Amino acid sequence: MPVNVGIIGAGRIGRVHADALCRRISDAHVLAIADVNLEAAQAAAAEYGIPQATSDHTTILSNGAIDAVIICSSTDTHSQFITDAAQAGKHIFCEKPVDFDLGRIDSALAAVNAAGVKLQIGFNRRFDPNHARVRQAIVDGEIGTPHLLHIISRDPAPPPLAYIRVSGGIFLDMTIHDFDMARFLIGSEVEEIYAAAGVRVDPAIGEAGDVDTAIITLKFANGVIGVIDNSRQAVYGYDQRVEVFGSKGSASTGNWYPNAVTISDSNSVRRDLPLNFFMDRYTDSYVAEMQAFIDAVVNDKPSPVPGIEGRIPVVMGLAARQSYIENRPVRLTEFQ
Amino acid sequence: MPVNVGIIGAGRIGRVHADALCRRISDAHVLAIADVNLEAAQAAAAEYGIPQATSDHTTILSNGAIDAVIICSSTDTHSQFITDAAQAGKHIFCEKPVDFDLGRIDSALAAVNAAGVKLQIGFNRRFDPNHARVRQAIVDGEIGTPHLLHIISRDPAPPPLAYIRVSGGIFLDMTIHDFDMARFLIGSEVEEIYAAAGVRVDPAIGEAGDVDTAIITLKFANGVIGVIDNSRQAVYGYDQRVEVFGSKGSASTGNWYPNAVTISDSNSVRRDLPLNFFMDRYTDSYVAEMQAFIDAVVNDKPSPVPGIEGRIPVVMGLAARQSYIENRPVRLTEFQ
Amino acid sequence: MPVNVGIIGAGRIGRVHADALCRRISDAHVLAIADVNLEAAQAAAAEYGIPQATSDHTTILSNGAIDAVIICSSTDTHSQFITDAAQAGKHIFCEKPVDFDLGRIDSALAAVNAAGVKLQIGFNRRFDPNHARVRQAIVDGEIGTPHLLHIISRDPAPPPLAYIRVSGGIFLDMTIHDFDMARFLIGSEVEEIYAAAGVRVDPAIGEAGDVDTAIITLKFANGVIGVIDNSRQAVYGYDQRVEVFGSKGSASTGNWYPNAVTISDSNSVRRDLPLNFFMDRYTDSYVAEMQAFIDAVVNDKPSPVPGIEGRIPVVMGLAARQSYIENRPVRLTEFQ
Amino acid sequence: MPVNVGIIGAGRIGRVHADALCRRISDAHVLAIADVNLEAAQAAAAEYGIPQATSDHTTILSNGAIDAVIICSSTDTHSQFITDAAQAGKHIFCEKPVDFDLGRIDSALAAVNAAGVKLQIGFNRRFDPNHARVRQAIVDGEIGTPHLLHIISRDPAPPPLAYIRVSGGIFLDMTIHDFDMARFLIGSEVEEIYAAAGVRVDPAIGEAGDVDTAIITLKFANGVIGVIDNSRQAVYGYDQRVEVFGSKGSASTGNWYPNAVTISDSNSVRRDLPLNFFMDRYTDSYVAEMQAFIDAVVNDKPSPVPGIEGRIPVVMGLAARQSYIENRPVRLTEFQ
Repeated sequence: MPVNVGIIGAGRIGRVHADALCRRISDAHVLAIADVNLEAAQAAAAEYGIPQATSDHTTILSNGAIDAVIICSSTDTHSQFITDAAQAGKHIFCEKPVDFDLGRIDSALAAVNAAGVKLQIGFNRRFDPNHARVRQAIVDGEIGTPHLLHIISRDPAPPPLAYIRVSGGIFLDMTIHDFDMARFLIGSEVEEIYAAAGVRVDPAIGEAGDVDTAIITLKFANGVIGVIDNSRQAVYGYDQRVEVFGSKGSASTGNWYPNAVTISDSNSVRRDLPLNFFMDRYTDSYVAEMQAFIDAVVNDKPSPVPGIEGRIPVVMGLAARQSYIENRPVRLTEFQ
Repeated sequence: MPVNVGIIGAGRIGRVHADALCRRISDAHVLAIADVNLEAAQAAAAEYGIPQATSDHTTILSNGAIDAVIICSSTDTHSQFITDAAQAGKHIFCEKPVDFDLGRIDSALAAVNAAGVKLQIGFNRRFDPNHARVRQAIVDGEIGTPHLLHIISRDPAPPPLAYIRVSGGIFLDMTIHDFDMARFLIGSEVEEIYAAAGVRVDPAIGEAGDVDTAIITLKFANGVIGVIDNSRQAVYGYDQRVEVFGSKGSASTGNWYPNAVTISDSNSVRRDLPLNFFMDRYTDSYVAEMQAFIDAVVNDKPSPVPGIEGRIPVVMGLAARQSYIENRPVRLTEFQ
Repeated sequence: MPVNVGIIGAGRIGRVHADALCRRISDAHVLAIADVNLEAAQAAAAEYGIPQATSDHTTILSNGAIDAVIICSSTDTHSQFITDAAQAGKHIFCEKPVDFDLGRIDSALAAVNAAGVKLQIGFNRRFDPNHARVRQAIVDGEIGTPHLLHIISRDPAPPPLAYIRVSGGIFLDMTIHDFDMARFLIGSEVEEIYAAAGVRVDPAIGEAGDVDTAIITLKFANGVIGVIDNSRQAVYGYDQRVEVFGSKGSASTGNWYPNAVTISDSNSVRRDLPLNFFMDRYTDSYVAEMQAFIDAVVNDKPSPVPGIEGRIPVVMGLAARQSYIENRPVRLTEFQ
Repeated sequence: MPVNVGIIGAGRIGRVHADALCRRISDAHVLAIADVNLEAAQAAAAEYGIPQATSDHTTILSNGAIDAVIICSSTDTHSQFITDAAQAGKHIFCEKPVDFDLGRIDSALAAVNAAGVKLQIGFNRRFDPNHARVRQAIVDGEIGTPHLLHIISRDPAPPPLAYIRVSGGIFLDMTIHDFDMARFLIGSEVEEIYAAAGVRVDPAIGEAGDVDTAIITLKFANGVIGVIDNSRQAVYGYDQRVEVFGSKGSASTGNWYPNAVTISDSNSVRRDLPLNFFMDRYTDSYVAEMQAFIDAVVNDKPSPVPGIEGRIPVVMGLAARQSYIENRPVRLTEFQ
């Protein structure tokens, strides 16, 4: 029996999910899409064949035919909309981050818990075939007991300064995905973080109160030591690589390229640049995470990325920021 | 203004095109799908939201609202259906091969010509990003004047013997795609072919009157010398690589993998196998070729792969077969 | 007990072998070096600490203390010097090719046979770690029964026209190494050859009566089909790759690079060019082949590359040339 | 005019240098080799044709014909032998580390300074073609201003526990090479170090008072942030990779393999393991560093790796150890 779905937010990521739900996932049925910008909602509805477009998300929450909502609105609305949707008895898929305030996150998760609905946080990278294959190598014992973790995560270009000013800072805006990836890959909790960082890409980012370049050390409960490398600007494109090194070997990912062509001439042996940004690189993972959400609802399975998975990376981001400010290792317990 | 389309054939490839036309290509509107197996047509219609399913393809040809037909039926129907569709004034996309009989091909192409409709042959590999990038390297002059061409084209496993017996033989069934690729990449006509071949994979293929392993040398009008390497069985998966070598360098493709992960352990440094077969490897190219067809119809542009492109590889296949039988280089003019 | 060695020829390759024998191979003792250019002999003697330099190679042949000679003089002297050395009772290492005349080769081999001395032909590529590893994959059964062989063998630049005019033509000068490699890798004899070739690199090569670009098909007695790709000019450097494809998989070599560094910038992801020519690419193989020769002499083991291995590739070269001239497959038996 | 050289120490590394000096470097002349084990000295003298073998290194220091000494004896003798050799007026090549005691290092460097002789520290990895190419990319501006540095440095297997107990600990024994590499690549001084480490490979290493796995963060004076990843055991072999990421791109090295062969079968697409340990991986760099030393002496050029380069990595090792013990970032000024 298909799941009836409402989408809140018709921006870039909302449309990505609409495409997946309407065209790629057979047991989902999108009944409505909402956006504060009604025209955006209407345009998406027209493109994906969604019967109803609205500027009022409560229309969706009060629609008794809708089983599940997809929250793709701006971050500052996430925790409230989760709470509202839970109280309306809807299953919830919510884009990350849930919130930057632990109190508001806890309220939202409590509402989800009280309502007994499913909540999946949109950490789509877990569903990327590369990252999933590395995780599988660990689960299957191909590389033995993990000892070390490396994550290279560099964006092709910094976001606008206006965005950076309200982003929560690099650790909560950018590294947060890598914090989730670190936990996902290693399957253990991080206990302590040390962040070394600086302004290397653009002084204006520093003037906006943020950093653009960082090396973050993670100590896991199971003894693994990890390191995350972040930059706001890799001129060659989106650089997304991980390596887990263990007692029996190593599993590492390369980047994802638009083609597998090599050109050799009198200057060099070369490839075209890797895929430029997350929409290209992680295309399939958006479909896969949404498929997983619909499956969880249809078959009453646990959420593959439940609400607590959205809270912990925020704690990690707060700890990393504190570590950078005070130049000392910070234990996550300082932020519980 | 969208193009109204009818699909003839609801088998594997028909469904691939239905998926592309219904879900991926915005300016196409599929009105009907036909299959001699009515249930297959109905199942496809249900899955892709096509209004009409029929067991009678003439229903499509006589539907005045339909602008274009997609011929995905069995090979022996292609030339007749092309003729019928042309006479009905429909634009035509037809799966390869058009036919194995040059007379019947010529009749079909004459009908297309007389009707002034567009015909695109389904050589989807031209739309693969790897092959397209190699072609672009030549067009852009990145590798200078081409001197040599290599095509490695090996299937993961042989088809059933029952299929092989009616396939027309490896040169017309399998190499035909590589003949098209050779012409596409080099942009010049082949004048002479020499085929060395044998039965290496399975003696039963030999007993069925065919070979399963071949090296085919091509001499092009522009002086390029090419070689095609075919095998019916590469145990590591679908092996599809090309290299063009020229006066200023070389452009070559590697295979396409499910992930970019490397596992290093005490035995080896390894990757998972490449994508296993054409449906996985060439997924995007099916959408791209259909998009190109719809664009040609909507914008009244020339077919990117017109009918003559479907005739020439058949001539090449006949020449290769003759070359193998008589163990001598065969000029294509012997088959005009 | 060390082997006492005399070297005939102090040109480039003579010095390569002198370096290996004097500095890298502990159980060889070079007593003398001869060259028609006395100064060249003296210079090499000074550099490598060889006691005697002479312009007269018979000084070496008549030196009773010398056990083995290394023939590095010009090709036209090879067959005579082999005969002379054999009659003097010396073991012989001789650079390829032995000769282009089958009668003279047979005389030389007969002399070797009559004298009961060892003769090793300088097909150094057999001792290259890449080619040796591919051969080992076949011997160990890693890739099952071989079906297909590919050899890419392209020089970085053509030799001087003066050299080309006396070289015997591309098939006897350049492809001859690939013919040996083909036999070495597959471990079976070639029965028939078809050569397609042309002048693509430089019209002056054509005016000198030669071709510079070729695709050569080989049919082996064991059913393997092979193809050799030759060009006199790969602008990106020395291109030396092989692939053997079999029932259980494939073994292929990449090129050999000066470093393993990748540079990624806003244009491309690239490597430096591969090693430029045979002296760099095959450095280690020269030492390894000479070590094998000395071992064979010291331990009275069979020559790893006996005289017949020098004859067969010449037959293959003659067949390839005939095939090109007459544009037909040529059986090697035509040249026995 | 050749340099007359004496070698002190005929163990493994002493023999590596003897081989380079006697066989690969034309303007060096080794007059004597000393080892407390006379038989070892005699064996090396016999193998490399060195006229004199002795158990007393003062024989070398007092030999007026000797211009330069190569100190390859045990680490605890380095600083004293440097002082003695300097006072005897010899140029000095000394294996790393100079000493673990900064006072003794300073005494030795003062003696070198007072004598006006050259001192080169044996940081051979600087002369590796891979590392040198990355450094060149920075110097040439290929990757713009450096932002981030990664060093992966993992041994194939831990040394014996007996060695570990006297090694000075992983930071002074193993990471010290990476500290030198970090400074060499970035061309700026490290100001602060944070080391996270643990016992993951073998509990016995922990019982011996050391760690075997570490992530070390480096802050450079020029703003670069670096990270070193160390493990005592990579089961797939010696893992030696670096990456420098900058404003215009990235330069990274892969490992060094025994061959460039890929095997594809029904399980995987794989390579043989990388070269197993430093003697194989860094072979050429030992010759290159010694050639640089001899050149510096012959042509009176500055030492390419002067004494201070041997002191700073020891300071870094002490800081890393302190950081690990106290779990805090440690500034190098704490150890000046």
